[in-house]
Amino acid sequence: MSDTMRAVVIREPGGPEVLEIREVPAPRPGAREIRVKVAASGVNRADLLQRRGGHPAPTGWPRDIPGMEFSGLVEEVGVGVTRWRPGDAVMGILGGGGYAEYVVTHEDAAMAVPPGMAVDVAGAIPEVFLTAFDAVVLQERLQVGETLLIHAVGSGVGTAALQIGRVVGTTVLGTSRSADKLRRAEEMGLHHGIPGGDAWPDAVLEVTHGRGVDVILDLVGGPYLEGNQRVLAQGGRIIVVGVTGGAVAQVDLRALMTRRASIRGTVLRVRPLEEKIALTRAFAEGALGGFTTGALHAVVDRMLPAEAAPEAHGMLERNGTFGKVLLLWQA
Amino acid sequence: MSDTMRAVVIREPGGPEVLEIREVPAPRPGAREIRVKVAASGVNRADLLQRRGGHPAPTGWPRDIPGMEFSGLVEEVGVGVTRWRPGDAVMGILGGGGYAEYVVTHEDAAMAVPPGMAVDVAGAIPEVFLTAFDAVVLQERLQVGETLLIHAVGSGVGTAALQIGRVVGTTVLGTSRSADKLRRAEEMGLHHGIPGGDAWPDAVLEVTHGRGVDVILDLVGGPYLEGNQRVLAQGGRIIVVGVTGGAVAQVDLRALMTRRASIRGTVLRVRPLEEKIALTRAFAEGALGGFTTGALHAVVDRMLPAEAAPEAHGMLERNGTFGKVLLLWQA
Repeated sequence: MSDTMRAVVIREPGGPEVLEIREVPAPRPGAREIRVKVAASGVNRADLLQRRGGHPAPTGWPRDIPGMEFSGLVEEVGVGVTRWRPGDAVMGILGGGGYAEYVVTHEDAAMAVPPGMAVDVAGAIPEVFLTAFDAVVLQERLQVGETLLIHAVGSGVGTAALQIGRVVGTTVLGTSRSADKLRRAEEMGLHHGIPGGDAWPDAVLEVTHGRGVDVILDLVGGPYLEGNQRVLAQGGRIIVVGVTGGAVAQVDLRALMTRRASIRGTVLRVRPLEEKIALTRAFAEGALGGFTTGALHAVVDRMLPAEAAPEAHGMLERNGTFGKVLLLWQA
Repeated sequence: MSDTMRAVVIREPGGPEVLEIREVPAPRPGAREIRVKVAASGVNRADLLQRRGGHPAPTGWPRDIPGMEFSGLVEEVGVGVTRWRPGDAVMGILGGGGYAEYVVTHEDAAMAVPPGMAVDVAGAIPEVFLTAFDAVVLQERLQVGETLLIHAVGSGVGTAALQIGRVVGTTVLGTSRSADKLRRAEEMGLHHGIPGGDAWPDAVLEVTHGRGVDVILDLVGGPYLEGNQRVLAQGGRIIVVGVTGGAVAQVDLRALMTRRASIRGTVLRVRPLEEKIALTRAFAEGALGGFTTGALHAVVDRMLPAEAAPEAHGMLERNGTFGKVLLLWQA
């Protein structure tokens, strides 16, 4: 049982170069907690914001070690743990501290790695699939026959939402500024790829024969809100999971009324543990089997050694990735 | 069976003076429809907009006779009607044509006048109670122990929402620009009356000890949206049922995300018949009994003869009313 571990630490707020590997104390599992030897740490856009000095980890999680998800092998179980045994392959979301050789989490906040999937590849699943599932299925109650529009469809959350939209039985539209990402998303089942320039609302209305879309999963934010309102069908729902383009925009409340539409914002990280557990269990029971049947796939852009965390952050900042970037820890 | 009837007709778009009584053809009930001899026609703000030339009635309803609700006695039943018999006291919402001696509606879109209530007084119930019940109970799932903020709490919808909020078991806050209306709302059970000037958000935060409110029922719109976002608790929901102050405003999507909050717009009038029926039945089964137990009350500001429709519209335009204004038809 190691008392120390290697972790990627934020030396000070700044660019990717402030990330460095350090030896730090390893966490120990309390009651109903498990300690996991991490195989892969997923990289998320919120990690970039945290590195720059914003988006601090919620209370109770490491402040200087980014990382909101992991996959790996259970190494030690705390008092009262019944769900897992040492050696089980698990994955899950965290409030922080994921860029490390070991993480500790509540046993109910972990899910089994799908049978047959490499444990490191599974690191690409938790954050993006839980975010997309929670947003479009649990919160917006996406229904078979509806139309789903995903902005930044080539992102981690975008590619997860695309697959979930297909499983639910919806027509899936997606935007991206990259023709290459649209082509790859279409290979994954995207029904209509739409270039992300100023004309995307017109293209969405043309593809939907003027009817518009039922649910919009938005990762862009402010600059897209006017267009999002234009293309919303009766009863349409916008759910915002990111504001990479800016946060403030104009809303037309009369248009929301006559369309009986809604705009919702959501985020996973700040939720209390019991809500994260409820979401994890809902996904594990309702959707996880899709990775075994072939309906769902982890979308990995690339895997890098943990030492390459600065390079990984640089890739996300340049918007050059399709799906997830993972940091690997040597076994 | 009368073939003609008196109705309040919009002569041309304009001020209250364009409303005049005319003799027009009386509607006849089709299959599963009932014809009602109207006792009272409720006056709603949307009627004012329609009179000015906006907000046309949906397809299938009279274009030049305003009125979205009625109470009265069933006079004739169409083929296949099983729910009502001639002489039954009923009330309900309409797509239009309510300012008339007779209305025709689907039998399932009508509710029984509560036992012991005068049939004309019941004309104050349908539109405002269905709107408030649909918005805060069915759509926003207001829960016992939550806090509800109602803007324009002295309005028809406001006084209905106040009563429903009390029945659900919430703490109810309400704003009004009129001290007299706040006093009267407090007599009806409003927990905290808040003057509707610029300082209302500060007052709401003070009353809630900085926590904010869970659900906001808004009839004001644009000018209140910034304040609404400020006073929203975690998981808070804004539902907009009116934009009397203006429709366009700025929204902060990042604040919506971190609060996991939503903004929804809603309107009853344009809904398809089957949805209006579903809402009517949900209210009839879930809430209507409250008028018999004394938990709910029709709030009537005044009753006027139908000939005084111009005067009634003028009263609503001056924001001088508390609760509903009804137009009465002679028996």
